[in-house]
Amino acid sequence: MSTFSTQRALRFGDCDPSGIAYFPSYFDILNGVVEEFWRELGFPWPDLIGRRRIGLPTAHLDSDFVKPSAFGEVLTFTLAVVRLGQSSLHLAHRISSAGEPRWSANQVVVATDLDTHRARPWPEDMRSSLSRFMESP
Amino acid sequence: MSTFSTQRALRFGDCDPSGIAYFPSYFDILNGVVEEFWRELGFPWPDLIGRRRIGLPTAHLDSDFVKPSAFGEVLTFTLAVVRLGQSSLHLAHRISSAGEPRWSANQVVVATDLDTHRARPWPEDMRSSLSRFMESP
Amino acid sequence: MSTFSTQRALRFGDCDPSGIAYFPSYFDILNGVVEEFWRELGFPWPDLIGRRRIGLPTAHLDSDFVKPSAFGEVLTFTLAVVRLGQSSLHLAHRISSAGEPRWSANQVVVATDLDTHRARPWPEDMRSSLSRFMESP
Amino acid sequence: MSTFSTQRALRFGDCDPSGIAYFPSYFDILNGVVEEFWRELGFPWPDLIGRRRIGLPTAHLDSDFVKPSAFGEVLTFTLAVVRLGQSSLHLAHRISSAGEPRWSANQVVVATDLDTHRARPWPEDMRSSLSRFMESP
Repeated sequence: MSTFSTQRALRFGDCDPSGIAYFPSYFDILNGVVEEFWRELGFPWPDLIGRRRIGLPTAHLDSDFVKPSAFGEVLTFTLAVVRLGQSSLHLAHRISSAGEPRWSANQVVVATDLDTHRARPWPEDMRSSLSRFMESP
Repeated sequence: MSTFSTQRALRFGDCDPSGIAYFPSYFDILNGVVEEFWRELGFPWPDLIGRRRIGLPTAHLDSDFVKPSAFGEVLTFTLAVVRLGQSSLHLAHRISSAGEPRWSANQVVVATDLDTHRARPWPEDMRSSLSRFMESP
Repeated sequence: MSTFSTQRALRFGDCDPSGIAYFPSYFDILNGVVEEFWRELGFPWPDLIGRRRIGLPTAHLDSDFVKPSAFGEVLTFTLAVVRLGQSSLHLAHRISSAGEPRWSANQVVVATDLDTHRARPWPEDMRSSLSRFMESP
Repeated sequence: MSTFSTQRALRFGDCDPSGIAYFPSYFDILNGVVEEFWRELGFPWPDLIGRRRIGLPTAHLDSDFVKPSAFGEVLTFTLAVVRLGQSSLHLAHRISSAGEPRWSANQVVVATDLDTHRARPWPEDMRSSLSRFMESP
């Protein structure tokens, strides 16, 4: 199964008074990783949102935090596409540091029409790109 | 079952270019609600973290986003304690606007020793407060 | 001179690994205070931005940080309107805790047309409200 | 004069409902740039803060926002050291996109002892690194 991977060091502003990552900041970073994945796939969000008026809001998210991550640690984010529905996309995220698991998340995003904020089927070009990504070795 | 409730309007800085709440901001707001709940219970975090060196990191979180919330809408956060373990606490969050459900979350937090970042049993005063809260009508 | 005042406790998510307020969070809080001021004045931003397509971006900001503020401290934000231009507004912010000055900021915001992102004169209703606010004792 | 430069695209989470960068997010990004500058210089913050207990809070900041930046634009941050005091450091920031100025900032940071939160003189290794950086062509 194909995956998308990227790295990010935990910055000062990501961490809280206990010296570890603030969990809402984890999700802000994760959202940036998903944005990068789409750009890599050929669908930069500024174009999707601005020109095509397609939104990709999150409908479901579940996360397990195995071990805290300290300020300065470098995290590796790995994303896999696990299921492609009519207008939904299931992503599995694994986040580790130096090979050690830190947290994971399952995320369901839904393609929406930004003018009505309602679900819409994937446009053909997005569907075929996501399918190719899922099938690539 | 007893619940804790508070309200918060969605501010400009909570929202994204599509005009609705940015989901990582939802969790930042939620964390503030949980902090308020603890203060109400008699355990302000600055004291817990600074003096008693007790952390309350999130070990698990799952969320369903039913309907997007627009900039300016007032959200009502309602929190219930659903289970109290040796060192864990299960919270159920319901978030609505004008009576209409918007999103929900189940959160498991764990009491930790901030010097070792490892789980520790609830101190007796915290355990009995949480129990009383669960049992109050 | 009339002022607008509001209070806000420093939350966990506002603070950094050194245990004090993270300065970018200060500005996020400040932006919320300014938003509240406009609502009080009768011009809620969701209406300004959504319906009237008037933006209020910041053109200039200068800040002095006199003393750090710790997690849990309650800050009092006091805002005065010091000058009203054709399309600009000069605000002076004083932020203290228990009467002790913590930081201050001078901010210039500009009324813009959100479709062109260019400056525009204040609409008459906004100008007269701001004038009345400046002149009230 | 030597400068430090880095690039950063404006992400979804950095922008506001009017589709442009939210100014507090600008400062969060700027803080990350300053953190990177120190790492490049040989002084990673996690080590400074965690082991050496040296903080680098901002004492003064003034910014001019010349032109808004849209979601997706790539910003170039350029930092120069303009003055090195006993315990202070004056930085000049220029931020542009595709050669066009967007905003600028003058920032004064102060070396502090993190246990007392009071100013302290620069340690000799930091002072000499900063001096070398200022003098390099």
